[in-house]
Order: sequence, then C-alpha cells, then structure tokens
Amino acid sequence: MPETLTLYTAKICPYAQRVEIALAESKLPFTRYEIDLGNKPEWFAPKVNAASKVPAVAYGGPSVPPENPSPESQKIAESLVLLEFIADISGGALLPKDPVLRARVRLFIDVVSNKLVPAFTGFAFRGEPVDNFWTAIEAIQPLILGKYAVGDEFTIADAALIPFVARGKVALKYDIGKFEVGAGLKAYDVLQTDPRFEKFRRYIADVEARDSFKSTFDEQFLKERYTVRFARN
Amino acid sequence: MPETLTLYTAKICPYAQRVEIALAESKLPFTRYEIDLGNKPEWFAPKVNAASKVPAVAYGGPSVPPENPSPESQKIAESLVLLEFIADISGGALLPKDPVLRARVRLFIDVVSNKLVPAFTGFAFRGEPVDNFWTAIEAIQPLILGKYAVGDEFTIADAALIPFVARGKVALKYDIGKFEVGAGLKAYDVLQTDPRFEKFRRYIADVEARDSFKSTFDEQFLKERYTVRFARN
Repeated sequence: MPETLTLYTAKICPYAQRVEIALAESKLPFTRYEIDLGNKPEWFAPKVNAASKVPAVAYGGPSVPPENPSPESQKIAESLVLLEFIADISGGALLPKDPVLRARVRLFIDVVSNKLVPAFTGFAFRGEPVDNFWTAIEAIQPLILGKYAVGDEFTIADAALIPFVARGKVALKYDIGKFEVGAGLKAYDVLQTDPRFEKFRRYIADVEARDSFKSTFDEQFLKERYTVRFARN
Repeated sequence: MPETLTLYTAKICPYAQRVEIALAESKLPFTRYEIDLGNKPEWFAPKVNAASKVPAVAYGGPSVPPENPSPESQKIAESLVLLEFIADISGGALLPKDPVLRARVRLFIDVVSNKLVPAFTGFAFRGEPVDNFWTAIEAIQPLILGKYAVGDEFTIADAALIPFVARGKVALKYDIGKFEVGAGLKAYDVLQTDPRFEKFRRYIADVEARDSFKSTFDEQFLKERYTVRFARN
C-alpha cells in the first residue's frame, strides 16, 4: 500500500497547481486540503510548513485528518522539489529514464523559473511590460522537443510551466492586471494569433487538453479573484 | 564503456567547481577543459553553450579533442542540472535512493541557491553586509542531518554548497572584497570561533577533507584572482 499523502494547496496558486497536476498524472491516491491563503489555519505553519506557504505535502505516517497532521509524517515544501518527489514516488511516470532527457526536463524548468515566472508576475503584479512574456515564450519555444516539452510523454517540465501560462492568459483575456486598459486584450490577441508563437500555442493546447490540467484549473474562479487582486487603483 | 564526457570549466568559478566535485566523486572518466573566462575561445558559444558560460558538458558522440566538439554529442549546461545529471549517470552515487531524502537534498540546494549564493556574491561583489552570510548559515545549519547534508553519505547537496563557502572563507580570511578594510578578517574570526556556528564548521571541515574538494580547489589561485577582481577602488 502506498504511503499516505496529504497535499496542502490553494486553487489560486500557480506553484500549488504544479503539484496538483503532477499528482493527478501520477494516479497516486492523496488527500487534497485547500488552504485559505488570506486566512491560514493557525496549525498550518507550526505543523506543516514553517514558511507558511503552499504547496506543502505531509507524507507517510498514520492516516490522520488533514487539520491534525501527525508529527510522524515527513513534511516537504517547494513546488519544484515536490515535482521531483512525485516523479520519484510514482515509479517512472513524469520523468524519462534517459539521463540526457532528464537533463532537458530540468533545463526547461530552469527557463520557466528564470524567464516565464518573472514575466508573468512582472506584468500582472508589478506593471512591467507584457513584452517580457514574449521574450520568455521565445526562449521556451525552441526547447519544446515533441508534443510535450521533451517528447511525446508528459513530464514535470509541462507541469512546471502550464499554471503560469494559463494564469497569464486569464489576466490578458479579461484585461485584468497592472497594465493599461486594453493592453491585456491586445496582448491576448498577439498570443492567440501571431504566427511566431504557433508552436507554443499548439504545445499549450495539448497540455491544457489533459485531464490533469482541466481538473485542477478553474478559469472563472481565477478571473474573479484576479479582478479583486489586480484591481487598478 | 561509459559515454565520452568533456567538462568545460574554470578554476575561478564556484558553479563549475560544483560539477568538478560531483564528477570526482562519481569516479566517471572525463576530460577537463579549462576555459579562460576573460578570453573565451571563439568556438565555445556556438559549439558548446550558447550562453557562453561554464560549467558545460559535452556528453556522448565520438571521442574528439575538446577544442573541436562534435555536433553528435549532447550539450548540457547549468550547474544544478549537471549535478542531477551526474547523479543520474553515476548509478546511485551522489543521491540517496529514498525519495524523502532525495527531497531533503533538493530542499538543501534550494536554500543554498536562495540564501547562501546571494549572501556570498553580495558581500564579495556588491558591498552588502557580511551579516547576510550569518543569516544563510543559520538557515542551513538546522538542515544538516548527519556528517554530510542529508546523512552519512556525500551527495550533490554538499557539492552545491561547498564552493561558495570555501570562496567566502578566502574573501574573509585575506580581507579581499567589497567591504571595509578589516571587516573581512573580523568576520573570518566570527566564522571560525563563534559557538553558534560549531555544527556548520564541523560539517564544512568534513566536506573540505574529501579528495573531491581538495583536488578541485586552489586557495592561492583564488586569493590572487580575488585580489585583482575585488580590488578596492
């Protein structure tokens, strides 16, 4: 029998969605527990993650209610650490066996971390140019080796990327973010139609078509939350 | 027979030393090629690493001189990607089998990347307070689980950390860096004697005692280069 696994997560959070996608792909049984990031339960930091962030996992130990985590379970945080962890415990899914392809997965994730994530948070939260999103896509596009990031099998590289692209699309499509009124819609049109992004669009469509994405993404919920959170002053 | 492996590296570079240490621990045969970072060969960026940085690896393909890399070899860069890659190809050395311990290795590396590396580059290059080094050590110290980072076996967590600590020690010990005259020596004394860092000192001594560290670290060379590079105006 597999070890018990509880995921502390939040629908709003792209880092947490990475882990939800990997768990959905792994088919491992787990308990999902939603943390209200605006009103965290007082037991969360002391008993699960001292940094008080999602995603966080309690792994192993006795079967207990998520609200009462056992001191005997292992607590693990950080989305990229958790992606590797889920690949490790899912016995071969989510990461290729070939060491060169495994390196390609990790290089892809490195570009996601260093280009795509700052571009998304930059234009949505900090009023930086949407153009950084194009630069990130142009850095990522040549790295796409097949239907998915490193070939025809879905890997943690895809799980690491898609929550940020999907949230970027919501911000642009509904014109919600720290950019001028109309700039989001204009950028959304570029993203959806510019021939230079065709390979990227096809790739994103394939990732978004998977059950692991669809079952962990709620566009309407995000739209409503972004309307409040990124509201222009 | 193992695949051919050429490491493009530079003695000055802490990121490159990470990979040299992992290769020394792995016992894999490889060819070491020193890149002069101040005068890079013109074939390096187009044929090995478009980002023109070390460390970079050429893996597989025919046996060729390092100066004439084969288009048939796989080119891999980024020190943390390469640490995982070397663990993958060395069949069990450098990373534990237990998935929870593997996660502990990666969490340790995450703290090294986010606290220790910025602290070192901050005080050596940018005139930020040496105190950030203490904060980093205090974040790392409780994560040390045994003789090495996650137990009694050396792992890529140790290889990721030690080049930055060793270079930090050189900067402080010889009082070379973007800090006030004397501040380095004073900080070096704190590092070497303050009781709160005792666990960390013992750990560092154990890592520095390994052949993989000693054979890849040249204190006098670094001292001379730092004297030029970090020279006060």
